[in-house]
Amino acid sequence: MKIALAQINPTVGDIQRNKNKIIENLNRARKENVSLVIFPELVVTGYPPKDLLLKKSFVKANKEAVKEIARMTTGTAAIVGFVDENKGVLHNAAAVLENEELKGVYHKKHLPNYDVFDEKRYFAPGSTSGSFFVAGKKVGITICEDIWVENNPLPGLKKEGVELTINISGSPFHAGKRMLREELIKKRALENNLPMIYLNIIGGQDDLIFDGRSYVFSKKGEILARAKSFEEDFLIISDFENIARIEREQEVIEEIYQAIILGIRDYVFKNGFKKVILGLSGGIDSAVTATLAVHALGADKVEGITMPSEFSSSGSVDDSVQLAKNLGIKCETVAIKEIYQSYLKGLHQQFNGTFFNVAEENVQARIRGNLLMAVSNKFGHLVLTTGNKSELSVGYATLYGDMSGGLAVISDIFKVKVYELANFINEREEKEVIPKEIIDKEPSAELRDNQKDSDSLPPYPVLDPILQAYVEEDKSKEEIIALGFNAETVAKVIKLVDRSEYKRNQAALGIRVTPRAFGSGRRIPITNGWRE
Amino acid sequence: MKIALAQINPTVGDIQRNKNKIIENLNRARKENVSLVIFPELVVTGYPPKDLLLKKSFVKANKEAVKEIARMTTGTAAIVGFVDENKGVLHNAAAVLENEELKGVYHKKHLPNYDVFDEKRYFAPGSTSGSFFVAGKKVGITICEDIWVENNPLPGLKKEGVELTINISGSPFHAGKRMLREELIKKRALENNLPMIYLNIIGGQDDLIFDGRSYVFSKKGEILARAKSFEEDFLIISDFENIARIEREQEVIEEIYQAIILGIRDYVFKNGFKKVILGLSGGIDSAVTATLAVHALGADKVEGITMPSEFSSSGSVDDSVQLAKNLGIKCETVAIKEIYQSYLKGLHQQFNGTFFNVAEENVQARIRGNLLMAVSNKFGHLVLTTGNKSELSVGYATLYGDMSGGLAVISDIFKVKVYELANFINEREEKEVIPKEIIDKEPSAELRDNQKDSDSLPPYPVLDPILQAYVEEDKSKEEIIALGFNAETVAKVIKLVDRSEYKRNQAALGIRVTPRAFGSGRRIPITNGWRE
Repeated sequence: MKIALAQINPTVGDIQRNKNKIIENLNRARKENVSLVIFPELVVTGYPPKDLLLKKSFVKANKEAVKEIARMTTGTAAIVGFVDENKGVLHNAAAVLENEELKGVYHKKHLPNYDVFDEKRYFAPGSTSGSFFVAGKKVGITICEDIWVENNPLPGLKKEGVELTINISGSPFHAGKRMLREELIKKRALENNLPMIYLNIIGGQDDLIFDGRSYVFSKKGEILARAKSFEEDFLIISDFENIARIEREQEVIEEIYQAIILGIRDYVFKNGFKKVILGLSGGIDSAVTATLAVHALGADKVEGITMPSEFSSSGSVDDSVQLAKNLGIKCETVAIKEIYQSYLKGLHQQFNGTFFNVAEENVQARIRGNLLMAVSNKFGHLVLTTGNKSELSVGYATLYGDMSGGLAVISDIFKVKVYELANFINEREEKEVIPKEIIDKEPSAELRDNQKDSDSLPPYPVLDPILQAYVEEDKSKEEIIALGFNAETVAKVIKLVDRSEYKRNQAALGIRVTPRAFGSGRRIPITNGWRE
Repeated sequence: MKIALAQINPTVGDIQRNKNKIIENLNRARKENVSLVIFPELVVTGYPPKDLLLKKSFVKANKEAVKEIARMTTGTAAIVGFVDENKGVLHNAAAVLENEELKGVYHKKHLPNYDVFDEKRYFAPGSTSGSFFVAGKKVGITICEDIWVENNPLPGLKKEGVELTINISGSPFHAGKRMLREELIKKRALENNLPMIYLNIIGGQDDLIFDGRSYVFSKKGEILARAKSFEEDFLIISDFENIARIEREQEVIEEIYQAIILGIRDYVFKNGFKKVILGLSGGIDSAVTATLAVHALGADKVEGITMPSEFSSSGSVDDSVQLAKNLGIKCETVAIKEIYQSYLKGLHQQFNGTFFNVAEENVQARIRGNLLMAVSNKFGHLVLTTGNKSELSVGYATLYGDMSGGLAVISDIFKVKVYELANFINEREEKEVIPKEIIDKEPSAELRDNQKDSDSLPPYPVLDPILQAYVEEDKSKEEIIALGFNAETVAKVIKLVDRSEYKRNQAALGIRVTPRAFGSGRRIPITNGWRE
């Protein structure tokens, strides 16, 4: 008997498209004599559908799609994640479809409501068994979080005599998470002496990346199959003793690279953009962002603009032109000096008697934002922002300036890691795609004469671990100092992070690659009197 | 025996300040021979503390504050909302403090996790009784949501023999909600034949406004006391049969006005701003916003800038100057024509062969945003944005342009209601504060020749109810058409709303006055294939 894991990429909200994709995979399964084909969690609606779930018309359309899919299960059964609804109460559910009928429905019992998850906002927990007789086998169905809790339904399913357990998931990626998943699934297989099928979504959805990497483990805890990472896959398994197919695993830096590629591609194409545009400053951040965009979309879909000011080094344009040449992308130059002068003239009366400060710096950054958005509005291109997580953490970024854009490509990557990514890319391509000059130069915003990041920030190898402890691990000032950092530096960094919450509140969506990105998984009040 | 309701305004995160405020009120209660003083839900941390609750140092500081407050309860007992923590598990809790000791703790049983609430993200539900003997009385404590559910703890408390029930709340305002509260409290009093004390926070916290309006009802369901709206109060009640003090109630338009005044004031001062600045366009939105800011902060703390372009009508400056004169605020003018021309020159190559369109319109709006932010960055003033809910719904606003700023004052008020508010203000002041010319002129963005809002949008009296049905009530296209609106218009409006989700994702915080504002209570995916 053959079972297929349909590791597909749904689009949130696009029930029609998701339904068609499911039916295509069902038809393929039938052709390949597969008895049962499994689809991920909430595959009909896409995950997470968020407040679309408050629309009755949306939930209704999702239920109708399941009925249509059911009619296509001649000869091949299916398990499909969808939203069930009874008298207005919603459940995160799995439909068991066989012989053109809805044979049963399982309701997720354990609803995650932490981190990026808000499932208790929408769903009621299930109370009935996940044991079903389908395709000639007694299988136990669980949904995502169900198997992550210690008090999980698996021992109960074992008692009911299931031969096999199937977990359908919508488990978002962060770097290194795959190890947690593998260990967990193996542990659950061994605890219950049952083979485990684990099926995950792949695809990008706003800030979240789903990495796929579906698994099959034997009841002895041996890995029998691992599906592709960051790609759709259709994996068939015929028994639970022999290896089916085990895809190569990736190092952390490679998986971050792949996650971002997928994140860009899905954000751009699922939202109907044809091209992206970004400002090239001659620095490492915009160089890495441009390269990732080219790898995700192709060189013909990426455009760069350099916007030198009177404070720009000669390298700012030259290095960007070299980068654009290496990448094969179009690159234009719009100097901002005259525009900047026109602002100073306009603001002459207001600024009279004041010294050059961050206000004049930001005017320049916002001119660049305005120029990028002008091209975006004229031609419909998506603007990518290029800020990294270190900058975004301490507010070393201009709101409505370099923060202007629809997608923040590397906003969850600390600066030191951005260099690592640059080197990884050049090694992977076996050539100097990102020019050595860009990698070697000292970081600078070039918004005043001889400005260096190090004028106002600690060196990144010091800054980044402090930020990681504070932002990602919720450590207190005392705990961070106890890690061996200078007390004054820690206090300064924490203050900078706290003071720039308002900027992040208006930031573009950023692709999440760590356990704690800025965005849906981190919800700090803006009006906030807490001081460490 | 005297009981006091301390309806105070805490600041989220500022445990030190909240603790001091609580102790001041305790001291006042003691002086007035009050036996028991009651403080609102989570008064120690402020509400909602959001992800500050993930910081162990924060939770610890909150517990230490309760210990300090306990030591101040000589002669006067207190009930204080705080975060309890046992082995890492958090509870939304009420501390019963008497004779310098922590006498008991109640854990909220029903945790709201819908709308703007995420309490299941942080708290575990309580399982122990809310019945305590304090200040010589057997009282039953509940926290906010506890009394809103049908399966509530009140009948259980009645059985335990409590003489009185006390509900401490952090219940955010929306227009008309007071009626729901009054009816609910009255109903619960009658159901259980028990007097009810209901104590709410007052204050603004980011998008949320807490309106106070604490109540006391007799066991017969008669109102005995109503505290002030949108103001701190210290209300003393001596028995549960006679009227103590009943503050005047307000019409809906007046309470919206008061809510916004409080929202501006608390956002500005709690965040340490000294002044606000806003662009005055000569239109109704900026006029109403400026007036509300002056009423909230005083004329010396508000500055206007007019930024006419070549497309501005003569009224745009004149009417703004008149408004500024009426309000007694400083108003400067920075013409944007030359700056705009410098952009067109800079973009000459890129825009060559294209027609004037939304790109050129947005360049102008973004010049204005840049100018306002430049003054903000130079002098530290907060920029107020002036967009209304109708515009924000359909995306008739420029991201990084007129959407630039820290607080959106009227972003939860539809255009028709903005006019109502303007008239209410003029009537309230018994003079023409907002010039008649501004109220009477046809709405226009003035970003191209002879532009009118009605060129691209349905008339506001048609647009607003469609938006209300779609945005606030989650009605489907068919349901809205069935209300009697033109099918084509409805389809167009829905499309505009759906397409501008990305703008709202980067919008400033907006003061919430309806049950469904853009912001924390509405979470629509940006990548979203759902089409009604």
